Amino acid sequence: MTDALWQLSASQASALMARHELTSEAYVRACLDRIRDREASVKAWAALDEADAIEQARACDAMPRKGPLHGLPVGVKDVIRTKNLTTQFNSPIYQGFKAGEDAHCVAVLRAMGAVILGKTSTLEFACGGQFPATTNPWDVSRTPGGSSSGSGAAVADGMVPLALGTQTGGSTIRPAAFCGTYALKPTWGSVPFDGIKGFSPPLDTVGLFGQSAEDLVMLAQAYRLLEEQPQVLNRPLRLGICRTPLWKQAETESAQVFELLVQKLKHIGIECRPVEFDSEFDDINRWQDEVMQNGGRFAFLPEALQAPQALHDDFKAKLNNHLGLKGPTIRHALNQIDRCRMQFEERLEGLDGVLTLSAPGIAPLGLETQGMATFNRMWTALQVPCINVPALWSATGLPIGLQLVHARYEESKLLSCLLTLMPHLDANRHSWNSK
Amino acid sequence: MTDALWQLSASQASALMARHELTSEAYVRACLDRIRDREASVKAWAALDEADAIEQARACDAMPRKGPLHGLPVGVKDVIRTKNLTTQFNSPIYQGFKAGEDAHCVAVLRAMGAVILGKTSTLEFACGGQFPATTNPWDVSRTPGGSSSGSGAAVADGMVPLALGTQTGGSTIRPAAFCGTYALKPTWGSVPFDGIKGFSPPLDTVGLFGQSAEDLVMLAQAYRLLEEQPQVLNRPLRLGICRTPLWKQAETESAQVFELLVQKLKHIGIECRPVEFDSEFDDINRWQDEVMQNGGRFAFLPEALQAPQALHDDFKAKLNNHLGLKGPTIRHALNQIDRCRMQFEERLEGLDGVLTLSAPGIAPLGLETQGMATFNRMWTALQVPCINVPALWSATGLPIGLQLVHARYEESKLLSCLLTLMPHLDANRHSWNSK
Repeated sequence: MTDALWQLSASQASALMARHELTSEAYVRACLDRIRDREASVKAWAALDEADAIEQARACDAMPRKGPLHGLPVGVKDVIRTKNLTTQFNSPIYQGFKAGEDAHCVAVLRAMGAVILGKTSTLEFACGGQFPATTNPWDVSRTPGGSSSGSGAAVADGMVPLALGTQTGGSTIRPAAFCGTYALKPTWGSVPFDGIKGFSPPLDTVGLFGQSAEDLVMLAQAYRLLEEQPQVLNRPLRLGICRTPLWKQAETESAQVFELLVQKLKHIGIECRPVEFDSEFDDINRWQDEVMQNGGRFAFLPEALQAPQALHDDFKAKLNNHLGLKGPTIRHALNQIDRCRMQFEERLEGLDGVLTLSAPGIAPLGLETQGMATFNRMWTALQVPCINVPALWSATGLPIGLQLVHARYEESKLLSCLLTLMPHLDANRHSWNSK
Repeated sequence: MTDALWQLSASQASALMARHELTSEAYVRACLDRIRDREASVKAWAALDEADAIEQARACDAMPRKGPLHGLPVGVKDVIRTKNLTTQFNSPIYQGFKAGEDAHCVAVLRAMGAVILGKTSTLEFACGGQFPATTNPWDVSRTPGGSSSGSGAAVADGMVPLALGTQTGGSTIRPAAFCGTYALKPTWGSVPFDGIKGFSPPLDTVGLFGQSAEDLVMLAQAYRLLEEQPQVLNRPLRLGICRTPLWKQAETESAQVFELLVQKLKHIGIECRPVEFDSEFDDINRWQDEVMQNGGRFAFLPEALQAPQALHDDFKAKLNNHLGLKGPTIRHALNQIDRCRMQFEERLEGLDGVLTLSAPGIAPLGLETQGMATFNRMWTALQVPCINVPALWSATGLPIGLQLVHARYEESKLLSCLLTLMPHLDANRHSWNSK
């Protein structure tokens, strides 16, 4: 057991609630207390209504339990519409905007009894423009990563056990890596994007944050992503080790701790087979960027027409096709990505998962950056599920994200791989113990 | 000039308004009158508020002109959210539901001055369940096609010059074909699906209905789909003739009138080159169906949780994965579609467009059917832009849809091809002249 209620993971709290040893109200109040203590420093929240949250929790306590998520508080990235609270996209155009309706991914959690606690800070439209004020809970002088900055920081800091984000480049796995928390970017399209401000349709993906591997299992279950219950495998794992074509951009220390982990895993009998790609993969991040920017030609048209003066120049540039993207370029990028996806999934045959880094290094200094998405773009383009595991650490004690990847629609296998790996990982450090 | 105001196409009305020879109010009133005359028979509308429409039109007349769409009325398929009027998805769960916000595709038109006239009838969630009561304006005993039934029928019947729909299987091109009107299914993803109830993300596409080729140009322009202004080409067209792998499912008369058109086009010096595919294409409609049904595993989860008793069994079956779809099947289907797409776009090289049928035949009898999407599914899966042109006719005078297809993001070329073809097509018949 942990010391304080707010330190419980979602699945720990859920187990206590199932045994009537914890009420939703007590747990939600503990989270709100934690937020009150820490928000001035972390700045993870774009909207919060304590009275509304407590009312939701009390309603949960008063009704029959709907399942494992019943009574658990969730943070929701502020590009995702919610029936309660404002949805402001960190854009001046939407100040005070209330959607009056939940996005698909929120409606599912709410219908299963979750408490929609608050809206978490985001880069403007999860795309460009205005940065959020959110800091990294391990070191306030460092970025939490973005664009799901508030979701990553809030979950890492124990303000809320679960949160929703999005990823079009590296917007879920990157903040999870920098903040040292668990996150799952599921297979593209499997959690519908309905009700979320989009940027580039073939890339836009809902992201799921939790405080433990079991929390991710619980969320994946809720969204019906699992073909079978994930479980610890009774046989040695077979892992692919993917030093992506951009590995030379990894920071020395990150590459080193990754190699040390691989050595350790091999030592305990886990097969670690290098996964390598043909040269077409060298340019995949450029193609991802072209496809992403192409989305920007269309995504912000309503705002440009309705409120041009309040739309950041970033979005106007995208809308005006500042890269001069044309049909043949986009088709080539999309086709090359498709070819890479086929190759990746073929090379995955017989493997329980692929291990790689989640980010080139630790969270960079400064809040006017989100850090690089170098090690995320290709997986987003490939539309495959990935998990960030906070299992690698710098000498200074900062999180270095470990990433676990599988083929589309193989969330069950991906999570089984994670659960089997967990005992061999150093994945129980928390930002609040680092001080 | 036509006899009555309601017979004007959008671009004709727009030209008159630009010259101050027509007010939005007069045009909108003419459309409302036409609806009043015909709705008991056509049943195209799910929501209509005359006073609200006239108020919007008056507001347009009172402000400076915002562009070609200024003051033009538009019908919106009732799976697309609108700020005014209800959005009910033809589902008992959403009776009386008001979204309070426009979907992306509506917001763009409204910001450009369009009048959002009403919501058009749809198959439940554009997917299954409950059929709409809409009839085919050429013959009320026949289906208008679906799922954008109301949009197709309303535009074909002169109730409104422009309408929005969606297509996941054949839901835009099919009703356009059966009702004998113009429609453009643009490149997947280029008109964002934000604010529309989704079914299968890699297939879901916004559909655009108009009363002439110029109307489609106007809509494509509004959504910034055009790299250059479409124009009549000063050289002989080079057309691909695609008798898809499923051509044997075409009705005899439809196949015959198609061949007659090809003969005629060849005769006037248009190059007509057969476009054929490798055997992988034979199964593309099955893969499309697997990908579509796979979307149903996720799309209706909020409704199943919130209001299970009001959700049609069709959606419950999909949610329960009645086809037993698993990762490898879906990945195979998606990869095969990707391979077909690369092949199709390669074979398009040097062609101004590809000509094929929009549907296997005329609208079938009965309202408890939408007709087959056999000749639409592959193009939806390929994510390529297609146009229905009402240019072929049965001996009994019913429309047989001609379909024009191009590569992704080539809407400019596709529309130039259409404009160049127009003088050679029999594309000026209307349902209201057939009686």
